[in-house]
Amino acid sequence: MAVHVALDVMGGDLGPGELVAGAVQAVNELDVEVTLLGDANLIDKALAAHPADKRRIRTVHTSQVITMEESPFEAVRRKKDASVVRAFGLLKEGGVEAVVSAGNSGATMAAAITRLGRMKQISRPGIASIFPTLKRPLVMMDVGANVDCRPRHLFQFGIMAAAFSRVLLGIERPAIGLLSIGAEGGKGNNLVRNAHELFSRSSLNFVGNVEGRDTFLGNVDVIVCDGFVGNVCLKVSEGLAEALMTMLKDEMAGSFRARLGYLLARPAFANFKKRVDYAEYGGAPLLGLNGTGIVCHGRSNSVAIKNAIRVASEMVRHEVNTHIQRLLDESDHMGLALSRSGEDDMVATESAA
Amino acid sequence: MAVHVALDVMGGDLGPGELVAGAVQAVNELDVEVTLLGDANLIDKALAAHPADKRRIRTVHTSQVITMEESPFEAVRRKKDASVVRAFGLLKEGGVEAVVSAGNSGATMAAAITRLGRMKQISRPGIASIFPTLKRPLVMMDVGANVDCRPRHLFQFGIMAAAFSRVLLGIERPAIGLLSIGAEGGKGNNLVRNAHELFSRSSLNFVGNVEGRDTFLGNVDVIVCDGFVGNVCLKVSEGLAEALMTMLKDEMAGSFRARLGYLLARPAFANFKKRVDYAEYGGAPLLGLNGTGIVCHGRSNSVAIKNAIRVASEMVRHEVNTHIQRLLDESDHMGLALSRSGEDDMVATESAA
Repeated sequence: MAVHVALDVMGGDLGPGELVAGAVQAVNELDVEVTLLGDANLIDKALAAHPADKRRIRTVHTSQVITMEESPFEAVRRKKDASVVRAFGLLKEGGVEAVVSAGNSGATMAAAITRLGRMKQISRPGIASIFPTLKRPLVMMDVGANVDCRPRHLFQFGIMAAAFSRVLLGIERPAIGLLSIGAEGGKGNNLVRNAHELFSRSSLNFVGNVEGRDTFLGNVDVIVCDGFVGNVCLKVSEGLAEALMTMLKDEMAGSFRARLGYLLARPAFANFKKRVDYAEYGGAPLLGLNGTGIVCHGRSNSVAIKNAIRVASEMVRHEVNTHIQRLLDESDHMGLALSRSGEDDMVATESAA
Repeated sequence: MAVHVALDVMGGDLGPGELVAGAVQAVNELDVEVTLLGDANLIDKALAAHPADKRRIRTVHTSQVITMEESPFEAVRRKKDASVVRAFGLLKEGGVEAVVSAGNSGATMAAAITRLGRMKQISRPGIASIFPTLKRPLVMMDVGANVDCRPRHLFQFGIMAAAFSRVLLGIERPAIGLLSIGAEGGKGNNLVRNAHELFSRSSLNFVGNVEGRDTFLGNVDVIVCDGFVGNVCLKVSEGLAEALMTMLKDEMAGSFRARLGYLLARPAFANFKKRVDYAEYGGAPLLGLNGTGIVCHGRSNSVAIKNAIRVASEMVRHEVNTHIQRLLDESDHMGLALSRSGEDDMVATESAA
């Protein structure tokens, strides 16, 4: 049965047209239905340009937009008719089964927390990100929702990311690494040293500390870190990949011989680009909520949006949240690490991604 | 006049032979003298293989070695005849003007702090690293010496890195960015938000928060972060650059056409590699000490060692420490941020790099 996904079309740097195009590709290629939320005029115009099965795509007009600059929780409180807020409202009411947004990721998380609530036992929902590696894809969490974390938050990120890896990437018993600056358990900052303790006492497949360079080697399936460090990693990687490609192109343009070489090797370059292109990986899942949400990169093109809708539908179909809950229950002997303290309830999740 | 540099030849993954070769290249090509510290038998053997002007290179035999696994301060306390400890002892006595080591960077920092002491007004000496960017090289600090920092430590890193950038890279008024996960001042974790306050009130050329991707764009000259985040950045970059090259080579090997393209473009690839090769940048300076020290990557080859000796000699010749002191004095109205509290004196600098 088709999974019904809501798409907030008012986020994204490329404008509603690009997002609607992604939704149309999704309904044409995948077993999904999509509800578009945003300015109905803009949506109608975009739909006119992209032929789609009209029974599988519908529009909900919303009158407000949350911009990238706004403070997430404040904006969500104030703008009740913002596309992203309405999308999670629709999910809460059962009108859709998942939400995809390429807007302000902090606001997306705030709308999700406010409308759906957090899973039992989870203090801080977070954002996971799927990284390409030399071997199989890796899940890093958190990549931007929680900047000042406690050890138990990192422990919970590990459980959620492992469940996601198992269900969506098919890795039976994902190897979990803790991002630090030295392989030994004593290495790292206070947060990491204490989180290492928690993981070591658990029954998870914890392989210990990993370092920044392990991110791309593919020797672990899950890398756990706080949202500040994770977001820096994500953006350093993006920036470096772009800078390297620019430098390489500069060099390739330097002589006739190199230009000819580039032309011959172009299909190889294209394959390479596809292999490291975030658009192929379809956005970053929000984990730890009573519902399914995906945030996409602001620069997402239609392919990235289609892939995000695909991942959202797979998360629903494979019941990722049920698996997270099961893994949480299995880990229940870890009493302390899974308790939600009153204090956690007070902390507003802040994101800047 | 030749600058006299001590080289600890007992660190480094490639063995003493490679380090001695780097020292020989340095005395043959640069206006430096080098004292090699380590096992005299190994040094003599290596020197026999590399002809050098014997008046410019001499050997001090040491009987102990600090390994990568040892706890820095404990090892430095216990192993008084370790090559790296003796090297900083020699610097303290005036026998040399700078120290270069490719060993355990935490132990190098611990030996430097113990033997030389910290500069007046500096709570935490740190490790700076020079990154290639699309424009001019950038200095990031701290990249591994201080994992749990206070805002004033970050402020001090900014001053030290700016002085280094001005004197060694010739950038008159270096633009300083604070590494965060959003451009606005309110974005980031508690540490970064409070450090932002300090920088904003200073007379430094502070441009505000920068994000991970700015590391390679070259829009700022200095990026300030705590040693945990900086070390992760450094190693993520290393890992990604290696992974991308491996993936690209895989693709290039995939078809005859791509292989031919690669062969034609090989000089361009070589230029590219040189542009991003850390060996060209000559190690990471330790800043904030009463003396000059450089730590090199464990995998440093002879070229990297030679370049580290070059940077060390330039730091001495251009009196980087005098400039740091001057910039600290200029910033003296920032009373709070530059005071050394008793607490700081108690904190052992921990490194895992």
